Amino acid sequence: MPRSSYVNGAYIPHKDASVHIEDRGYQLADGVYEVIACIHGHLADERGHLDRLQRSLSELDMNMPVQRNSLQFIMRELLRRNRLSNANIYIQVTRGEAKRDFPYPANSMGPSLVITTWPFQFDNQSKMEEGVKVVTVPDQRWKRPDIKTIALLPQVLAKQKAVEQGAYEAWMVDNEDFVTEGASSNAWIVTRAGTLVTRKATTDILRGVTRTAIDKIRKDLQIEMEERSFTPAESYEAVEAFSTSAVALVTPIIDIDGHKIGSGKPGEVTMRLYDEYISYVNGLRGEQLGWAA
Amino acid sequence: MPRSSYVNGAYIPHKDASVHIEDRGYQLADGVYEVIACIHGHLADERGHLDRLQRSLSELDMNMPVQRNSLQFIMRELLRRNRLSNANIYIQVTRGEAKRDFPYPANSMGPSLVITTWPFQFDNQSKMEEGVKVVTVPDQRWKRPDIKTIALLPQVLAKQKAVEQGAYEAWMVDNEDFVTEGASSNAWIVTRAGTLVTRKATTDILRGVTRTAIDKIRKDLQIEMEERSFTPAESYEAVEAFSTSAVALVTPIIDIDGHKIGSGKPGEVTMRLYDEYISYVNGLRGEQLGWAA
Repeated sequence: MPRSSYVNGAYIPHKDASVHIEDRGYQLADGVYEVIACIHGHLADERGHLDRLQRSLSELDMNMPVQRNSLQFIMRELLRRNRLSNANIYIQVTRGEAKRDFPYPANSMGPSLVITTWPFQFDNQSKMEEGVKVVTVPDQRWKRPDIKTIALLPQVLAKQKAVEQGAYEAWMVDNEDFVTEGASSNAWIVTRAGTLVTRKATTDILRGVTRTAIDKIRKDLQIEMEERSFTPAESYEAVEAFSTSAVALVTPIIDIDGHKIGSGKPGEVTMRLYDEYISYVNGLRGEQLGWAA
Repeated sequence: MPRSSYVNGAYIPHKDASVHIEDRGYQLADGVYEVIACIHGHLADERGHLDRLQRSLSELDMNMPVQRNSLQFIMRELLRRNRLSNANIYIQVTRGEAKRDFPYPANSMGPSLVITTWPFQFDNQSKMEEGVKVVTVPDQRWKRPDIKTIALLPQVLAKQKAVEQGAYEAWMVDNEDFVTEGASSNAWIVTRAGTLVTRKATTDILRGVTRTAIDKIRKDLQIEMEERSFTPAESYEAVEAFSTSAVALVTPIIDIDGHKIGSGKPGEVTMRLYDEYISYVNGLRGEQLGWAA
C-alpha cells in the first residue's frame, strides 16, 4: 500500500505529492504548521492544536483553508488510508500560489493545505525515555516565535548544532542569558524543592499545546510550578529537566552542556508527568471523531 | 509560447513546475535565493550575485547545486527559451527533499535548484522613477539577515504594512531606533552636504550587490559616502533618499512616514546614480556569455 498524503483537495501517493514552485510557502516561508500526535487512535490535544493553528493563521491575516470539521475529517481519512493508529500528523497551510512578490497577493489561488502523516516512532520514543542530552545555543529567531510559522531555518541550525555535539535538542538562549525554549520543544527544569519551572508564554516562545497539558496535569498532581525564565547555569543545578512537544511528548533530559542533571537518569517527577500525559491522551475520548474512536 | 522554468535538471512549462511537499524549502525555509536583473541582455552584476549565493550556501553548510558555469548556462538558456532580454532571474537553492526533521538530513535527494524568470517591468520602473513612499516598521527579523535566505516571512509582513499605508517599501528599524534596511532593498539618504549615508554591511543587513555597485560608482563620481546607521528622524530631514536592489535598481524616495523628502521629487544625486547605474550595467559586457553578449 503506497503512502498517501493530502494536497489541496486530493489524497495522492506521497511520492507524487507536490506544490508549485511559486507557492508562497516555498519562496517566502509565508505559512504556518501544526504537528499532532495520534496515540492508539486518539489525536492528542486536537482542539488545542487546531485552536493554535487558527491563531497562527490569524496573526498572518490568513483564514483556515477549510472548515475545522473538514480538517478533522481529512486527518482521520488520511490516517485510515495509511492504516495508522499511532502516528504524527503534519498540517501545513501557506498563503498559496501567486506571482512572486512580498506583499499579500491580490490574486492568488487561495491558501495551500498540505497534510502528511508518518508512523509514530516507538523505537525512538523508547530510546528517548532513557533520557537525552541538550546543548544551549544563542536564540537567533525573529521577534515573533509565538507564531508557529514555517520560517524554521534558525531552528534547523540550532538543532544541527545539537546533533553535531551528540545532543538531541538545542535549548535556545536570549540576549539576557535566559533559556527561551528548545528548537522544537518547551524547556522545563525541576528545582530541589520539587517545583516545576518553565518560561512564561509571552511572544518570546511558542505556547506549547503539550506544555499546556502538562500544566493541567501538574495541577491535578498538586505539583508547584513557577512560570519564569531560567539561565543555563540554573538548569545545570536542577535536579531534573525535560522538554515537551507534540512529537516527542515528555522527554527526560539527563545532560545539559555536559553537566549531568540530577542523578544522570530520568527524574521521578518527569517520568510521573510522562505517564500521566500518556493516560491523559488516552483519556481524551470525548474529543475523538469517526473511525479512531 | 508557454513560459518555461527550470526545476532540478529540467526545463518545464512554468504551470507544471513543482517541488515535493517534503522539500526542506517548503517545510523548513531551509534554503537561499538570488534575483538577478537582465537588462538589454546583460546580467547585472552576475558575478556579485553568484559570489553572494555561494556565501549564503556556505553559511548554511550547503554546496552549489551545480558548477557556476552550468548555472550561468542555465540562466541564459532559460532566458532564451522565454525569449527575454529584459528580465528578472530568480534562483532558489534548498537543502532538497528529505523526511521532515530539523537537523540536516543524512540521506536526502541532494539540493533543489529552481530558476524562474519574468519580464522586467518597465511600466513599474517608470512609475518608480517618479519617486516612491516609504514607511518605517520594527525590524522583526532573525539575527543573521546578512544571509539571503528564503525565511522571508518578516519581510512579507513589513512590506504588507507598507502597502496598507500606500507606500512602496518598508524601512525596518532596529531596537536602538536605527534603520537597518528596506524589506527588499538597502536604504540610503543624502545629507545637506551631499554625502551619501547607508548602513555599514555587518551581519545586521544584507550586503546588497547593487549597494556595492553604487559604492563603486559614487567613488568614480567623487561623491562622499559615510557607512553608518541613521534614525528615521534623520531620514525625514535628508535632502534625498533612495533604495537599491537588484529588482528595483535605484529607486528615488520622496516621502518617509508622511514626511516629504527634499523637494518631494526625486533628488539630483539619486537620479545621477540611477543613470550611471544603468550605464554601468550596460557596460558589463566583459562578464557576459553566450547568446546575450
